[in-house]
Amino acid sequence: MMTNPLVHPDRLFPAEAHTRAIARRLYERIAHLPILSPHGHTDPRWFAYNEAFPDPATLFVVPDHYIFRMLYSQGVPLEKLGIPRIDGGSVETNPRAIWKLFAEHWHLFRGTPTRLWLDHAFATLFDIHETLVPENADRLYDRIAERLEQPSYRPRALFERFNIEAIATTESALDPLEHHEAIRQSGWTGRVITTYRPDSVTDPEFEGFHSNLVRFGELTGCDTSTWSGYLNAHRKRRQFFKSYGATASDHGHATACTANLTHAEAEALFQRVCQSPASAADAELFRAQMLTEMAKMSLVDGLVMQIHPGSMRNHNERLFKQFGRDKGADIPTQTDYVSALKPLLDLVGNEPDLTIILFTLDETAYARELAPLAGHYPALRLGPAWWFHDSYEGMMRFREMTTETAGFYNTVGFNDDTRAFCSIPARHDVARRVDCAFLAGLVATHRLNEEEAYGLAEDLTYNLAKKAYHLS
Amino acid sequence: MMTNPLVHPDRLFPAEAHTRAIARRLYERIAHLPILSPHGHTDPRWFAYNEAFPDPATLFVVPDHYIFRMLYSQGVPLEKLGIPRIDGGSVETNPRAIWKLFAEHWHLFRGTPTRLWLDHAFATLFDIHETLVPENADRLYDRIAERLEQPSYRPRALFERFNIEAIATTESALDPLEHHEAIRQSGWTGRVITTYRPDSVTDPEFEGFHSNLVRFGELTGCDTSTWSGYLNAHRKRRQFFKSYGATASDHGHATACTANLTHAEAEALFQRVCQSPASAADAELFRAQMLTEMAKMSLVDGLVMQIHPGSMRNHNERLFKQFGRDKGADIPTQTDYVSALKPLLDLVGNEPDLTIILFTLDETAYARELAPLAGHYPALRLGPAWWFHDSYEGMMRFREMTTETAGFYNTVGFNDDTRAFCSIPARHDVARRVDCAFLAGLVATHRLNEEEAYGLAEDLTYNLAKKAYHLS
Amino acid sequence: MMTNPLVHPDRLFPAEAHTRAIARRLYERIAHLPILSPHGHTDPRWFAYNEAFPDPATLFVVPDHYIFRMLYSQGVPLEKLGIPRIDGGSVETNPRAIWKLFAEHWHLFRGTPTRLWLDHAFATLFDIHETLVPENADRLYDRIAERLEQPSYRPRALFERFNIEAIATTESALDPLEHHEAIRQSGWTGRVITTYRPDSVTDPEFEGFHSNLVRFGELTGCDTSTWSGYLNAHRKRRQFFKSYGATASDHGHATACTANLTHAEAEALFQRVCQSPASAADAELFRAQMLTEMAKMSLVDGLVMQIHPGSMRNHNERLFKQFGRDKGADIPTQTDYVSALKPLLDLVGNEPDLTIILFTLDETAYARELAPLAGHYPALRLGPAWWFHDSYEGMMRFREMTTETAGFYNTVGFNDDTRAFCSIPARHDVARRVDCAFLAGLVATHRLNEEEAYGLAEDLTYNLAKKAYHLS
Repeated sequence: MMTNPLVHPDRLFPAEAHTRAIARRLYERIAHLPILSPHGHTDPRWFAYNEAFPDPATLFVVPDHYIFRMLYSQGVPLEKLGIPRIDGGSVETNPRAIWKLFAEHWHLFRGTPTRLWLDHAFATLFDIHETLVPENADRLYDRIAERLEQPSYRPRALFERFNIEAIATTESALDPLEHHEAIRQSGWTGRVITTYRPDSVTDPEFEGFHSNLVRFGELTGCDTSTWSGYLNAHRKRRQFFKSYGATASDHGHATACTANLTHAEAEALFQRVCQSPASAADAELFRAQMLTEMAKMSLVDGLVMQIHPGSMRNHNERLFKQFGRDKGADIPTQTDYVSALKPLLDLVGNEPDLTIILFTLDETAYARELAPLAGHYPALRLGPAWWFHDSYEGMMRFREMTTETAGFYNTVGFNDDTRAFCSIPARHDVARRVDCAFLAGLVATHRLNEEEAYGLAEDLTYNLAKKAYHLS
Repeated sequence: MMTNPLVHPDRLFPAEAHTRAIARRLYERIAHLPILSPHGHTDPRWFAYNEAFPDPATLFVVPDHYIFRMLYSQGVPLEKLGIPRIDGGSVETNPRAIWKLFAEHWHLFRGTPTRLWLDHAFATLFDIHETLVPENADRLYDRIAERLEQPSYRPRALFERFNIEAIATTESALDPLEHHEAIRQSGWTGRVITTYRPDSVTDPEFEGFHSNLVRFGELTGCDTSTWSGYLNAHRKRRQFFKSYGATASDHGHATACTANLTHAEAEALFQRVCQSPASAADAELFRAQMLTEMAKMSLVDGLVMQIHPGSMRNHNERLFKQFGRDKGADIPTQTDYVSALKPLLDLVGNEPDLTIILFTLDETAYARELAPLAGHYPALRLGPAWWFHDSYEGMMRFREMTTETAGFYNTVGFNDDTRAFCSIPARHDVARRVDCAFLAGLVATHRLNEEEAYGLAEDLTYNLAKKAYHLS
Repeated sequence: MMTNPLVHPDRLFPAEAHTRAIARRLYERIAHLPILSPHGHTDPRWFAYNEAFPDPATLFVVPDHYIFRMLYSQGVPLEKLGIPRIDGGSVETNPRAIWKLFAEHWHLFRGTPTRLWLDHAFATLFDIHETLVPENADRLYDRIAERLEQPSYRPRALFERFNIEAIATTESALDPLEHHEAIRQSGWTGRVITTYRPDSVTDPEFEGFHSNLVRFGELTGCDTSTWSGYLNAHRKRRQFFKSYGATASDHGHATACTANLTHAEAEALFQRVCQSPASAADAELFRAQMLTEMAKMSLVDGLVMQIHPGSMRNHNERLFKQFGRDKGADIPTQTDYVSALKPLLDLVGNEPDLTIILFTLDETAYARELAPLAGHYPALRLGPAWWFHDSYEGMMRFREMTTETAGFYNTVGFNDDTRAFCSIPARHDVARRVDCAFLAGLVATHRLNEEEAYGLAEDLTYNLAKKAYHLS
């Protein structure tokens, strides 16, 4: 069979022949393993209603902030990419026009993971063998559009084709989980589970925080105007999420700050943030305290806790006003973990039955803070390279900077963290290849023997995620 | 032809044979391209008056802070290297003695870019085939000295021999540009352009700030005792610099702080800093505001803006008192960009016709802050690895840590940033080789196809600098 | 001879064949050189009384915080590893049980330096050829235990077998150095020297600071209730340490802060910290001032000064209360050097006869701060990759991020920094191999010629440590 140049069988393996051969052997052992996707943002409606994806632009371009931020950085207005404006102002609606504009800028992605992911999807899902350029844009559009109409390209068929054993979506604490209920009612057996994301009711600076609290009370029947009622609402809601398969909660905070206030202090703080508007210091302290409260609840109900700190959201004021959240203007900032996590760790860090998974957008913390912390505290594990670092170089740096102090067994496998469904196999494939490349380097330099590397490759691909996220 | 061991034809290419072959093929395509040097510190007098360089020590040792800081770090007094003292105290004046002292310490530069640069100059300009050691110091001195007397070693001849298409010098806003005028009058057609560097009149802590403002008024005919007159003086002076070819301004600040004050606030601040001495906070705020003012002027007059933050100047107090500025005691510090640039970006970050080029001495910002910012804001581009990072490892880290998020097309090619004229071809050659090595790595690991890499190599070497700096 | 798979002769050398061959040639030149261990924590009693090590667990597991922190991070209680509790509570005392628990968790160390070190000791000291697993744990225990009873496994015999030319231990300023006296009295000629570590009397937050001052006065006959008496006590004690071979002092501070107070300010500060308790600010300022005082004394008595900043000690409160210091809960923090060291450097940074060796746990400082500082100030040198970074990747990053700015000659060779005696040859071997691998990379990419690399390999292995630590 001729090799498809978009997906060379040796891609991402080390160039040196002997090391490459080791990487290949390792990869052969794990390439077939099912996908565990314990942290991501796919839309449960896809699996609930199993409707066809509408067109190539809507599938690949419009919802992907990796794509539109890059085009925007080179002067392409978001309107031309069909991104909806908050004011309802006119934007491009012709998917073929959006696709062609995308094709004209495809060269911008040279050397980026987006290029790897999309080439993988083009090649493996749509039998495309050529690099997208303006000249073939129409033809490739037609090819993809035609396939998307076929039953085998519906979400559930792709889910099975992708060999997904379990996938977690992420829902707000206020989400009724109706789509998850619809999946259950449908009788389809694909394992799609939810994740408890309470930011809208734990962050006093979240849009609509006060009305969110009211809604939180309605949903749970708890009196969320009192501290104890509010905590009970969380307990109930976590149970509700667990009944839809949730094994984890997720917390996206600007910093990793935690606090451990007395009951009286916490109660008084809660009353203050319930008054509008909370001061910046109170808002931060409340978020900090809520991480600790969530950890205490995890000790009881067993939900794995994920902390995703360090992104300054909506940095671009004008864009935020015109287009809203998640439009590519989230910028990482320096993140301290050593002091920030101490209150939480003083309380629960020594609990071997608790799992707190730490992520970072600040790679300087890998070797300096995160690996030493996870290499010591029983409750801590390290999440994989995240967001801007979910890439070949980013994952290599993650392994190079954490392994020697934390080892492999304080890490938790890969997260695709994506809303781009078709990129999921590509993302997991990249992660598997990078891990095999890294392990092959250890074997080739005699830091690890090949037999052990086989077991490790399986652990990094499958076993560690299964264990850390309680997916068995 | 026998290979000169000082400049092995495969230097800086990856050791692995297959990848090296790719790097070689890429390099062959771009090695002949002319040099664009859009940011540097060569002396316009060289090109204006075209006098012979006096001797090897004065050419290579005395003005090069990379060299004398290393010798100083190992206990060699600056006086012995002929560095002039502020108090006029006696220093070594015999260039041969300086050269011999330099030769005795040449081993200190093993593994450094200085070694690469000088070996390149020794080999390609002076036909030297041996490593400098005390034993051959006299002989090599004579060889170089003899050549320097020849007409083909005069500045203009070297400029042409170096295949320089355009070079930018950097002049203070107060500089009369008389040497640039002399170049123009001479009829010589080499393209030597100036750059607008206003630190002496935008930084209230600059030596002589208040008298600088007076002089600024005299030069422009503007009333620089008022805020609007002061801004007008900048506008006029920028036009004057543009008339000598300037396409860019350059700003060397201790931090990347920007501000966006109201007119009234800015006016009041200007009046305060005009009083001596400005408080540290006012001085910082004024520098911050002036970055924004310069950006607003750039929107009108089209000058590209370069921000070079993060150096603590003159860290060594005793040395500064004895020898003055730029004596190798500038030390990088942590630099924040995310908060610091926000006021500027809120105002002009979305302007696709504005180009602001960001540099850093704090590599932790590459992946965390700079690539995400430049990968989003239309007005931002990333300058190349700078100063301490203008080296093989430094440039590799730059590409590894910025490409996956910002791509290649949000970068602007290479800057040599040097006052060491003879090192210019070497520095550009190192940059080209590193880029070819990096691209070859992408090709060898099937992250990029070789055809695309050819185009990219040309873009990184020539096209991106031409476009970003408006050099067409 | 069959290769022992635990110690492949090419381990840690680059995978690429040509570069590997260079690394091998370099290593062959330096493998036989004696060990200089100028900074470490071995127990002088071993050499004084030359008693047999009791058993494998007590030798390898119980005292090694790299080992027990990793097992603890995966839920193994420290009690089960035989770590003594402060309250005298019961802990495992059967060394074979501890060893078996260790064997069950040996896979956690895959990819870590601990694995390299112990495999090296197992192979070279105990002729073990197989990876430790639960199944062979008993057999390997017996093998090691049997050898430990032999005379050739006593400390002095091992010292000679390890080819140690000189080793420094570290003693508190209050230590009577009785074991060093016993070594001297014994007539054994192994060179075991002490190091002056005054933290217990320079850090007002050290346990027992006030009584330590009293004891300090008793030991020296100085009036340590006055500033000048206190300083004199240091001077006397440093002389005493010098009489037991000390060539260096060592300072472990939470930050790198230094100060240069007037005599009156320092005197007043001393009086304040003598009152209990000192404020946090005073404690920090006193530590900062004492670094400068130590540097001034070094100018007189010639002791080399080592600064080890940046560890937040005893981060895990519960563990600290149960088990005390040094139980694996020390976590690195961000460390500033540029501002922190300025007061010290303003005073003594330009002294070519003073040597101050800087260490870091914050790798972001390598390229940004430490290499530029050491590449300028005559008094500064860079210590090797430390603690969490004493590993293949850590040492590579050290060379990659410091060499181009500071060169090799502002570094000081390797420190093993260990209390694990049997790991010393392994640690030095790893360092030598990494340096040879790094140099081989420079040679293979034609950044250095092989002849020079031979000399450099010797310098990095032996000459630089000998010179920097005054060990000739």
